[in-house]
Amino acid sequence: MKKIRLFTPGPTMVPEDVMLEMARPMEHHRTAFYRDMQKELNELLKYLFQTKAMCLTVTGSGTSAMEGAIVGCCPPGHKALVVYNGKFAERWFKVCQTFSIEHKTLDIEWGRGAKPGDVSKAMDADPKIDTVIVVHSETSTAAVSDVAGIARVTKERNALLLVDGITAVGAIPVKMDEWAVDVYVTGSQKAMMLPPGLAFAAVSDRAWARIDSGKMPTLYNDFKAYRKSLETFDSPYTPAVTLARGATYVLRRIKERGLESIWAETTLLARATRAAGEALGLKTFASDPVDSVTAMLVPAGVDEGKLRKTMRGRFGFQIAGGQGDLTGKIIRFSHMGYVDAFDTLGVIAALELSLLEQGYKVALGGGVAAAQKVFAEGLK
Amino acid sequence: MKKIRLFTPGPTMVPEDVMLEMARPMEHHRTAFYRDMQKELNELLKYLFQTKAMCLTVTGSGTSAMEGAIVGCCPPGHKALVVYNGKFAERWFKVCQTFSIEHKTLDIEWGRGAKPGDVSKAMDADPKIDTVIVVHSETSTAAVSDVAGIARVTKERNALLLVDGITAVGAIPVKMDEWAVDVYVTGSQKAMMLPPGLAFAAVSDRAWARIDSGKMPTLYNDFKAYRKSLETFDSPYTPAVTLARGATYVLRRIKERGLESIWAETTLLARATRAAGEALGLKTFASDPVDSVTAMLVPAGVDEGKLRKTMRGRFGFQIAGGQGDLTGKIIRFSHMGYVDAFDTLGVIAALELSLLEQGYKVALGGGVAAAQKVFAEGLK
Repeated sequence: MKKIRLFTPGPTMVPEDVMLEMARPMEHHRTAFYRDMQKELNELLKYLFQTKAMCLTVTGSGTSAMEGAIVGCCPPGHKALVVYNGKFAERWFKVCQTFSIEHKTLDIEWGRGAKPGDVSKAMDADPKIDTVIVVHSETSTAAVSDVAGIARVTKERNALLLVDGITAVGAIPVKMDEWAVDVYVTGSQKAMMLPPGLAFAAVSDRAWARIDSGKMPTLYNDFKAYRKSLETFDSPYTPAVTLARGATYVLRRIKERGLESIWAETTLLARATRAAGEALGLKTFASDPVDSVTAMLVPAGVDEGKLRKTMRGRFGFQIAGGQGDLTGKIIRFSHMGYVDAFDTLGVIAALELSLLEQGYKVALGGGVAAAQKVFAEGLK
Repeated sequence: MKKIRLFTPGPTMVPEDVMLEMARPMEHHRTAFYRDMQKELNELLKYLFQTKAMCLTVTGSGTSAMEGAIVGCCPPGHKALVVYNGKFAERWFKVCQTFSIEHKTLDIEWGRGAKPGDVSKAMDADPKIDTVIVVHSETSTAAVSDVAGIARVTKERNALLLVDGITAVGAIPVKMDEWAVDVYVTGSQKAMMLPPGLAFAAVSDRAWARIDSGKMPTLYNDFKAYRKSLETFDSPYTPAVTLARGATYVLRRIKERGLESIWAETTLLARATRAAGEALGLKTFASDPVDSVTAMLVPAGVDEGKLRKTMRGRFGFQIAGGQGDLTGKIIRFSHMGYVDAFDTLGVIAALELSLLEQGYKVALGGGVAAAQKVFAEGLK
């Protein structure tokens, strides 16, 4: 009967009614029911990505849709710039390596977000670059890149911009058309409050022109096959029907509430968490912190593995540690989806108790009070 | 409140308790909970495939795992023989085309299953062939290939055998190790009684040796990445946690009941359905009918689209039509998973009523009685 609260930056908590919606009797995908649902889902996804572009629903993790985007937009003769500032960015240049895509990596210190100047400098130094791949919210470091600014750079230079929006879309401002992003990708298990298993990609006309200019070197992640199927609101392969049903249901509610309201709440949760960290002497890791996830440096003398074990084992709060070189050095808290101020006060209280257990000097309630202060201001 | 019964050969009906198991609170995948579950799931999958080989759990449709199997087992220098006797077989030579894999197709009349002699003849005519790809149960025609016999042929010739077991595994006898199959693939939405979204691949040591001899031309469907993650009961990308939970739950029950008992029931349902078809004058399409799906020819004067519309719209029975050249010519009924004799009598009764509506001469109850007779014998 222990209550488990997920503060991991994906999977995140799924609302009970969304779970039950997906538990309704199974439906087949080649039916009027599914086609009507896919039609509605397409429109809802356009709202989510703030775009008029075609949105694809892919059965797989976010990686599958990003692989499809990259290989589709980088046929031979094109060159990609991969902004490399974290573990997920790393995955995208591995896709380039795997598919022998000509590319250059733009190394940026982990914890920093990419700025328009970083990208314009790299592009001006290598005029062959005509595709830029950037992670909007780098989940591994909790840093945000300036996608709006980078999109101005790529647009000016007539290059395509592909954005991994996996922990950005639905959590922080994403305005695909206003900014002129060419492909935005997200996954179901983040701000969309669904279990993992679906990925979504919004694809601009400019991106389609590039995709159509080459041959897709993958069958499963071939965006062209998805586009063709969408003509009849179908899917090239059997889609994850229950998850698509959950996505339609949850996006209706997201639209009812309004993205602006969700973005504002995400920001408030992030600000409160960072304020609590400061009050407890835990530094925010990222110099450009994103509002969907917070990474804090584990203070000296505190064992990160033990800390997370206490948080989960004794208090039921599942937070994330660091990945790669950051293993043992940071702890991460999600602010996406089905999580509110009071869950957040809970995780801060549990953090205080878990730090105390390791002999770290904590004024109990200090972090909670700092967070409450942010919430109080937010209520004004 | 209309009761819908899925007789489509995937997605099939999902038991209510499996749906509710998957509706339990979300869990993260990098936890002791998930690792213990994945460990158990691996063992249960070995039982399902009747193998000691490593089993992979892939987030995607069956196509994703088949793509991974084919591209992994056919690095440059190898040549595949793709047995082509239906719509799904077609997809596997499209994978070969997409990835520029050297291959030959072995055309077999749709509705017929591949026999050992077909494969040995083709292999003897082209000694370069060292990989054979065959669909065990070709869902589009409801025909079964003799995988046990074909495996003898490939083993003798020291070739790899990759089998699409998507509507075979868990429904009809599949004995990976006894037969010496190298890769067997299945999907969640068939005999496993789960929603679509997961694929499973059992991979022999011989297949791993081939995979390790080359470079994987895909990141998302890279079997090596899955193998590496399995060392720690993890997944290379965020897995479809809820579906994996459902898979573990349902496979426990499948193992409790025993595969032999399930195979026998599937056969009984297929025999009863074919007997009903005969009694009603509807010919079985396949000359080598499989027991997991039955395809019947639509009799002259009956409109297939209208027939299925009546079955679904008035009676709630969702059956499948034909694909490709078989559109409008056949109707298909699943015998996989959560479906029993009484559901099957129901679909036959609905078929009789729907045929009658189109003026087809039906002795009401004739098909039902023929099926009941098979069930009565099966009870002895």
